[in-house]
Amino acid sequence: MATTRSLLDAAVALAQTRRKSDLDDLIEELRIPSISTLPERREDCLRNARWLRDRFDAMGMETQIVDVVDGGLPVVIADWQGRPGKPHLTMYGHYDVQPVDPVDEWKSPPFEPAVHGGELWARGAADNKGNHMVCVKAAEHLHAAGGLPINVRFVIEGEEEITGPSLPHYLRAHGAQLKTDAVLIWDSGMDEDGRPTLATALRGLLYTELRAKGPAVDLHSGTFGGVAPNPINTLARVVGELKDRHGHVTIPGFYDAVQPPSAEELAAWKKNDAKYVQSMKRMTGAKALEGEDGFLALERTGSRPTLDANGFLGGFTGKGAKTVIPAEASAKVSMRLVPDQDWQAILAAFTKRVSELTTPGVEITVEVLGSAPPVTCSVEHKAAHVLRAAYREAFGSDTALIRVGGSIPVAVDFQEAVGAPLVISGIAQADSAIHSPNEHLVIDNYHRGIEAVIRFICGLAE
Amino acid sequence: MATTRSLLDAAVALAQTRRKSDLDDLIEELRIPSISTLPERREDCLRNARWLRDRFDAMGMETQIVDVVDGGLPVVIADWQGRPGKPHLTMYGHYDVQPVDPVDEWKSPPFEPAVHGGELWARGAADNKGNHMVCVKAAEHLHAAGGLPINVRFVIEGEEEITGPSLPHYLRAHGAQLKTDAVLIWDSGMDEDGRPTLATALRGLLYTELRAKGPAVDLHSGTFGGVAPNPINTLARVVGELKDRHGHVTIPGFYDAVQPPSAEELAAWKKNDAKYVQSMKRMTGAKALEGEDGFLALERTGSRPTLDANGFLGGFTGKGAKTVIPAEASAKVSMRLVPDQDWQAILAAFTKRVSELTTPGVEITVEVLGSAPPVTCSVEHKAAHVLRAAYREAFGSDTALIRVGGSIPVAVDFQEAVGAPLVISGIAQADSAIHSPNEHLVIDNYHRGIEAVIRFICGLAE
Repeated sequence: MATTRSLLDAAVALAQTRRKSDLDDLIEELRIPSISTLPERREDCLRNARWLRDRFDAMGMETQIVDVVDGGLPVVIADWQGRPGKPHLTMYGHYDVQPVDPVDEWKSPPFEPAVHGGELWARGAADNKGNHMVCVKAAEHLHAAGGLPINVRFVIEGEEEITGPSLPHYLRAHGAQLKTDAVLIWDSGMDEDGRPTLATALRGLLYTELRAKGPAVDLHSGTFGGVAPNPINTLARVVGELKDRHGHVTIPGFYDAVQPPSAEELAAWKKNDAKYVQSMKRMTGAKALEGEDGFLALERTGSRPTLDANGFLGGFTGKGAKTVIPAEASAKVSMRLVPDQDWQAILAAFTKRVSELTTPGVEITVEVLGSAPPVTCSVEHKAAHVLRAAYREAFGSDTALIRVGGSIPVAVDFQEAVGAPLVISGIAQADSAIHSPNEHLVIDNYHRGIEAVIRFICGLAE
Repeated sequence: MATTRSLLDAAVALAQTRRKSDLDDLIEELRIPSISTLPERREDCLRNARWLRDRFDAMGMETQIVDVVDGGLPVVIADWQGRPGKPHLTMYGHYDVQPVDPVDEWKSPPFEPAVHGGELWARGAADNKGNHMVCVKAAEHLHAAGGLPINVRFVIEGEEEITGPSLPHYLRAHGAQLKTDAVLIWDSGMDEDGRPTLATALRGLLYTELRAKGPAVDLHSGTFGGVAPNPINTLARVVGELKDRHGHVTIPGFYDAVQPPSAEELAAWKKNDAKYVQSMKRMTGAKALEGEDGFLALERTGSRPTLDANGFLGGFTGKGAKTVIPAEASAKVSMRLVPDQDWQAILAAFTKRVSELTTPGVEITVEVLGSAPPVTCSVEHKAAHVLRAAYREAFGSDTALIRVGGSIPVAVDFQEAVGAPLVISGIAQADSAIHSPNEHLVIDNYHRGIEAVIRFICGLAE
């Protein structure tokens, strides 16, 4: 205990005295344009993987760059098992970044990191280099201060932004060897009030394509208008009626398994909702927000399932007029699912509803293009308690319990293949503009984040 | 009177004895691949215009090939004013034809006319060469039998299949000089029972494009699903709700000006509807017909207005899944209008309804891409009476009064620029497969049609 305490103090002292070099190291990684979706940036991605490997090697970790899938981008794995009998922590991040288009809108070049008034501007500053470097730096300072007090594994992938297969394959192939006591998925951020967060659940996904067939061939709307079934009209009516004007999904049984948020969550959301609504208005640029009547915006993106059309195509879509009743039309319709909705049960109800809503002359088929189960993350285990305590020390703030609206496919992979509690957090501020021009990170959060992770790791050792 | 009578008998006798050469001449024109939409067939279109001019020249008519619009296809005008004081008849047709795709489905090559069991198979056999050659041949036989008994003008255009501007420009520029007592728009056909027809009305058109804007940028459906307005969902709901499940258009006032068919029309439609439904089922290839509850199929395509979506585009429409809530979506929606609907009043009601059906976060604009007023054709004038009598003699059949579901833009141009009664008819049988592979014409109709037009012209002289 005394050892851990002095280790902690020494490591935190390093984090406070080495702020400049901690920032310089992040800037060095941010200069690597590791855009996974662009083939011409493949070499940069591989260079980024080697750059990380070298840092882990320097700490004496057992390090590998694992090529999992032919032509894919490798997973960087770094293991340190120097504390037999002590807990084991896995820390996840990704070294790939989003493209930078539209590049004209950047106030400074995306791969020339710039400091503007306490913020670091660069592609990847928040998502995910600024995040994962917090964990790397915490480990480095603990290593320099006398050695990590627990066993750790870093898993840093290069295909997060393209939802690539490498890490899922790796996890499912090596699940048994990847035994760990907690998985820190360090790819999230702070809330609207600048408080650290901990995710209690992630929404799942059911993504479908509807194909509507009417006449056998395209028809003239003058000659046949009034007798020919029109697959666009019917499919539009079906898509339109799946969700009513009040944002309520009309599929019978759709909400049956939905669990309400905890009292703690709901109380926090009530307090924060007005600010969240303002932020969502700014981010969407829409003249008004929409969503299910009778629920907070934070519920609607967090604890409530949704249904959205993601694409629609049918008939003549060029310039001008063509008087056609087309033979077919198609739409992509996806649903965000929440605990405890089962995507297969929802699919059955959805398919039945689509078939009820169609018209006699139109046949609609439903194809599943993707699915991910919703994920529940308990916050009643040691790692969650320790992280909340660490945040309180480092940020002087309580931790907000949040729901993540999107699915994080790798969370499901970790949960199913590795089985340990998931701790989903990170230090990107709410307005960090990830995936957009002018991505940036509040530099103070970076340094405080390093201290928080040092405290978290030391807390797990006790 | 006696003169006209003997002229008639002589001309009909020629039509009966010269059946072979009448058919051969049509076959000659059908060998010209005058596809107006294909630039590489432009020279063939011009050749077809010259081929017609030569026939009119041979009758001593005053003939011109008029280039109206730069790069357009010319209008062939042939005038004969040899009977001062006698009535004047204008006969309309078009020398251009539809493309032949899919050419593999033709049982004989489209521009190598073939006779199969009393039918002539070729592109243009019905639409419109077989039709306009009926009028040309009637004039030729009358010319050979002693001279036309009235003044006539042929107007044969080359842009009907591409709805080109040449003829409309010509008519509007020369309306005053084109004074005539009747316009025979000879581009229609027989009914399901093989009876000659006379159109009492054509539907008009209002063609719009709806553009829906929601968020300022494309958004991630996980992060924003539940708060972001989705322009696809909203536009789908709007398009879906413009027409209810019973085929009834929900725009307030939409049906207010609609006139019921005459008792004579309705009685005939009731008798023919079952056969028409079977024919429509075959032609659409749909598993069931749809349309407004409580009306005959013949009413639904003839005397009732309709609303159809002709195109819809929004979001991600490539292969696979993209979890996007798009910034915008668009749809093309057109309405077929009937007498006495006014397209501008309908547009105002439509725009209001669209705006009522949208959702708070989505703005939908309405743009008019095209319009044509509905046309009423009286059958209570001399030309109509005379044509019905001529049909009775030539086909041994009453004339069916029909409504034309599509608009014939040139009918509006003739009506507005020239002002004479429109007589819309033709001898293509109902299953002639115009615009499709294996277009064909019942040869007996061609020969009887020539006799009918001889009788019609002589009847006008009396």
